[in-house]
Amino acid sequence: MTAPLQPLLSPRSIAVIGASDHIHKIGGRPIHYMKTHGYAGTLYPVNPQRDAIQGLRAYPTLDALPEVPELAIIIVAGEAAVQAVHDCARLGVAAAIVIASGFGEAGAEGRRQQVEMVRAARASGLRLVGPNSQGLANFGSGAIASFSTMFIEVPPQDGPVAVVSQSGGVAAIVYGLLRGQGIGVRHMHATGNQADITVSELALAVAHDPGVRLVLLYLESLSDPEVLAEAARVARARNVPIVAVKAGRSQDGQRAAASHTGAIANEDRAVDAFLARHGIWRVDDAHALARCAPMYLRGWDAGGRRLVVVSNSGASCVMAADAAPSFGLTLAPLSDATQAALAERLPGFAATANPVDVTAALLTNSALFGEVLPVVARDPAADLFLLDIPVSGMGYDVPRFARDAAAFADTAGKPIAVAVWQQPVAEAFREAGVPTYANAAEALSAFSQLVSHQQRLRQIAAEGEPLLPARPAQPAIAAAGATLSEAASLARLAAAGMPVVEHYVCRNVDAAVAAWQRIGAPVAVKASSPQVPHKSEHGLVALHCNDPEAVASAFAAQTRTLQAMGATCEGVVVARMSRGQRECMIGAHWDPVFGAVLVVGDGGKYVEVLRDTAVLLAPCRPADVARALDGLRIAPLLHGVRGEPPVDIAALCRLAVQVGDMVHNAGGAILSVDLNPVMVNGDGVVVVDALIEEARHASH
Amino acid sequence: MTAPLQPLLSPRSIAVIGASDHIHKIGGRPIHYMKTHGYAGTLYPVNPQRDAIQGLRAYPTLDALPEVPELAIIIVAGEAAVQAVHDCARLGVAAAIVIASGFGEAGAEGRRQQVEMVRAARASGLRLVGPNSQGLANFGSGAIASFSTMFIEVPPQDGPVAVVSQSGGVAAIVYGLLRGQGIGVRHMHATGNQADITVSELALAVAHDPGVRLVLLYLESLSDPEVLAEAARVARARNVPIVAVKAGRSQDGQRAAASHTGAIANEDRAVDAFLARHGIWRVDDAHALARCAPMYLRGWDAGGRRLVVVSNSGASCVMAADAAPSFGLTLAPLSDATQAALAERLPGFAATANPVDVTAALLTNSALFGEVLPVVARDPAADLFLLDIPVSGMGYDVPRFARDAAAFADTAGKPIAVAVWQQPVAEAFREAGVPTYANAAEALSAFSQLVSHQQRLRQIAAEGEPLLPARPAQPAIAAAGATLSEAASLARLAAAGMPVVEHYVCRNVDAAVAAWQRIGAPVAVKASSPQVPHKSEHGLVALHCNDPEAVASAFAAQTRTLQAMGATCEGVVVARMSRGQRECMIGAHWDPVFGAVLVVGDGGKYVEVLRDTAVLLAPCRPADVARALDGLRIAPLLHGVRGEPPVDIAALCRLAVQVGDMVHNAGGAILSVDLNPVMVNGDGVVVVDALIEEARHASH
Repeated sequence: MTAPLQPLLSPRSIAVIGASDHIHKIGGRPIHYMKTHGYAGTLYPVNPQRDAIQGLRAYPTLDALPEVPELAIIIVAGEAAVQAVHDCARLGVAAAIVIASGFGEAGAEGRRQQVEMVRAARASGLRLVGPNSQGLANFGSGAIASFSTMFIEVPPQDGPVAVVSQSGGVAAIVYGLLRGQGIGVRHMHATGNQADITVSELALAVAHDPGVRLVLLYLESLSDPEVLAEAARVARARNVPIVAVKAGRSQDGQRAAASHTGAIANEDRAVDAFLARHGIWRVDDAHALARCAPMYLRGWDAGGRRLVVVSNSGASCVMAADAAPSFGLTLAPLSDATQAALAERLPGFAATANPVDVTAALLTNSALFGEVLPVVARDPAADLFLLDIPVSGMGYDVPRFARDAAAFADTAGKPIAVAVWQQPVAEAFREAGVPTYANAAEALSAFSQLVSHQQRLRQIAAEGEPLLPARPAQPAIAAAGATLSEAASLARLAAAGMPVVEHYVCRNVDAAVAAWQRIGAPVAVKASSPQVPHKSEHGLVALHCNDPEAVASAFAAQTRTLQAMGATCEGVVVARMSRGQRECMIGAHWDPVFGAVLVVGDGGKYVEVLRDTAVLLAPCRPADVARALDGLRIAPLLHGVRGEPPVDIAALCRLAVQVGDMVHNAGGAILSVDLNPVMVNGDGVVVVDALIEEARHASH
Repeated sequence: MTAPLQPLLSPRSIAVIGASDHIHKIGGRPIHYMKTHGYAGTLYPVNPQRDAIQGLRAYPTLDALPEVPELAIIIVAGEAAVQAVHDCARLGVAAAIVIASGFGEAGAEGRRQQVEMVRAARASGLRLVGPNSQGLANFGSGAIASFSTMFIEVPPQDGPVAVVSQSGGVAAIVYGLLRGQGIGVRHMHATGNQADITVSELALAVAHDPGVRLVLLYLESLSDPEVLAEAARVARARNVPIVAVKAGRSQDGQRAAASHTGAIANEDRAVDAFLARHGIWRVDDAHALARCAPMYLRGWDAGGRRLVVVSNSGASCVMAADAAPSFGLTLAPLSDATQAALAERLPGFAATANPVDVTAALLTNSALFGEVLPVVARDPAADLFLLDIPVSGMGYDVPRFARDAAAFADTAGKPIAVAVWQQPVAEAFREAGVPTYANAAEALSAFSQLVSHQQRLRQIAAEGEPLLPARPAQPAIAAAGATLSEAASLARLAAAGMPVVEHYVCRNVDAAVAAWQRIGAPVAVKASSPQVPHKSEHGLVALHCNDPEAVASAFAAQTRTLQAMGATCEGVVVARMSRGQRECMIGAHWDPVFGAVLVVGDGGKYVEVLRDTAVLLAPCRPADVARALDGLRIAPLLHGVRGEPPVDIAALCRLAVQVGDMVHNAGGAILSVDLNPVMVNGDGVVVVDALIEEARHASH
């Protein structure tokens, strides 16, 4: 089997269209890099002005080459770039990288040119990276089709990390930060406008590379979640973690992304749900992308969240203990035996409980770290080790500390990190292969990510592969949808087997009174009209009606109001007044990228204000919903507090799954379903209010 | 007037007891530092083994000196240190610093010795720093009575910052981080066990120093809030910001602090309230202490929270826009005129809306930053400027960028920060005097702190000096308090003029029924017993009683239950059933350090679970309570949402102030007051349930 995207990642021959003799020009750098870092294939500089470039024979045109190159790097800009794509397509070049910007991200003419390039490429099977791309670099094959200046700032070194980014800047930052930590980088790819090839597709390709053990992604828009899901599946199978930034979280961010790479906005909480579902860890920025890399690469399996802190500063012990809970970590309670063993090794005034304060005695006894670490490592309560060394330097045997920490890291099999802000000291630990951070907060953040990410990956392994998101069968629906009436919405839910409140649709006052009699308890009277989805704001809901007069007067008032509004009246719904131990909400809507998106949470009239909801992708399992509910502020109330019994969480989860399935199976025909409140009791759930919005039919 | 603590900060003569000839020993370093950094007073090494130390004449004992030194640095340990304190006291030395550890933080014998030192010092007026102290260093006077090795790692330079810390380690870290940014440090003091002199007292002293423009504090325990409040007052008057870490936030942190400096735990939310009240900004760790220093020192007055981002990386623009909201910042909407002016200067595909993406064109046009910054600075919507340069280095005119940024910082008068992770690039900006951060998140965090801190200081200036906290008139009350019955609690509140629900205390069933008749509406019947404060858990509350039978049967059942429990029965309280648009809670309790602590928030039965409360110190003003309420999750509900009217926030604030005053004025005699729920409506508030706990009387 050929490796995916082989013509881009390991091409046998490369043409550089717009090649330059100057190694610091964009057209010169890729050639210079490939000559320097051992590209084994054939390089063809294309430049009509010169016979030779950087010592290689140059050709005036693509047509003049002795063979059709596998890859073309198109340095030339504007219309010349479009022409070069046409040439590549005509000649049967397998892949091309368009470097120039000024296309899809910059106005109508640029968009037109971008569309033309894609059309030409698709017609001939040519795969396209860019435009507006910094290029791709594979230090495994030496195919460095990139003009990044960062390779000059920080020399490359092949290694286990793949960086795939829509932005060349982010690729360069992450590469630089990793290399600064001594970590080797195999892939550093930037996709730019993604007219054809996306971050997802390259992520899938690098996930197949046996040399890759960590994949770091930067995305501004996500249009092919099914490809990224497949990349995640391949990576999980190989035990390769994926960490991603998906930028454009805020409105301002989405606007900036649109003008940067022409990105289409994604619904951010759906992005969260998508990434979590597939075990891709989401972080916020380029620095956070690089932060956890040293820990992942050690291959540690973090067993739990119980932290041991060892420091030569008592105050750092206190501050680390303070910080631990905000990263979801607890301090491991060391056993009496461990503490006794520590007491033998530490001065009398040192603290042997966790945090372990070896005190300034470290200055006179350089063996302390080496003696203390193996002792705490044996304690079964200890999962993670923070070695916080805020004060050292001259007079301290730093090389020995680094050796001791490295020996510990190699033998203990449990994650360790060192926090040290003094550069030369940090360097000693880094060179010894110990993950090193500028301060405790960064180290604890990395620990927390490692543990949580591994926990999620174990969940996926235990529960089976995540259900795949629905790929929308149709393009985004631009027109507004059509709202169903209360009566029609409830009927639809009941037909789907969902537990709906006992109710009767009544066309006249006698029917309404009869319904009240049948229910035999206080009722709610609600006008039913497709034009008035939000009834209570118009006084179209009467609660606690408990005699014929109240029912009749509500009927009369509501029909009058609807008439005055000029709205269709489908009668009134007379429904049993239902109470719940809790009022929850369940909603689902159709997203053009992710398909059915499910929202569950605290319900009632303040749902928009108190915003205690969780988002999942449908279809999903009851266990997924249960986990989402456990992240809510109201979670303790669902499980029962102050002597109250728990509510029927299982029924709530089943209903949520049904709602998600309903929208999923409709494949875009249902735009949204909104159930609020859903009354939740100890023995089941009841939908009291419902609103369904369908994609508008052609007849409308 | 003598400067406060002058014998410690600018002594005319210093004896070093336990002086060493070796400049890297603890007894040698202070002498070496003072000789190197120009201490102008007289140094007296004391060492019975030597005639001369580091070229100075040495003396065998303190008694042998030609004069009584103003300050003694006591290097010797254990019993010898205790003896040295006795000697200093006997001779009339003004101040002494005890360096050795192993006293109050380490067992009974150490505590006894510490008490003995303090007793001897107090008897003669000798002021004591330590024990377990790294010492004090004043680079203004050259009195470097400190053995910190950090002065060797990073050479000192007198400057505008004072660092006062209970921990020598933290003092050293903050000093090192500041010096690494090229910032000069005047004071670096470590107080250790604080047997006598505290961080508060030194903070007050350095706040008086005319050379100090920023005070950074690290505390593990706070026992003298009135002194720190006075330091804050002096600093505010001089426009000197104070930033503080108060460690021991978590239980584990408090335990670690106890074994580090023998710290007594403070109630952490009360610490928050105390620091906020006095305009001291609280941060979490040593790195955060140093982070905002460059901005404070520029003397910028941040007008608002509207951010402008300028970058040569489009992705960094997107990520900064995404990050801004999490720091409470918004992107400034640039005017059309500004954008037009930017368009003239930037390449066609660059983004002229905020964030401003100058693109990789910066590589070929080094003037871009210098041209763009003055244009955006003129826009009235812009308050803060982030210059994010994640990609540069060779080929970029970094010195010019730094000059342009510095010129902007000097002339614009608005805060600017540069985010750059490449060390040499960062150095260029730092040397030019521009606040420089490793990444955008850190810069935005510093901006946010600057703006919020200045806003709080302006509030204090506008509203007048904060009311001073009550200094507890008596030591902490160890014994548990005595709970008042419901009836007695309500009576106490009513007597203090608080709005209490209409209720009657009824000793027999006839009285209960009569009370129901008088109220003329559904009532609640609640057993009243001082032994059963939590009635509903024992079935001692009957709600919605609306006929004589219900009232009578509740009375009978409740008195029977109390009897079975063996609890005193003070009758039942028959109270009007009261409803509120919201149910809130107000509580106050007596803290041995801070006096009356007030808690306000969302009420009802889930108050412990949903935890939506704010903490203030009493006495306070209604405006303080209103501000605290505005920080709650339920704040929008109080102000009215979805067409609801606002509740009577003013009445709620008045009641909270009354409750705080009640506990404050009792001066420790009332341990706690707990009102939950307080029914809050559009036209007032009503206390429905109350529980008061008093300090137990001697007769109990």
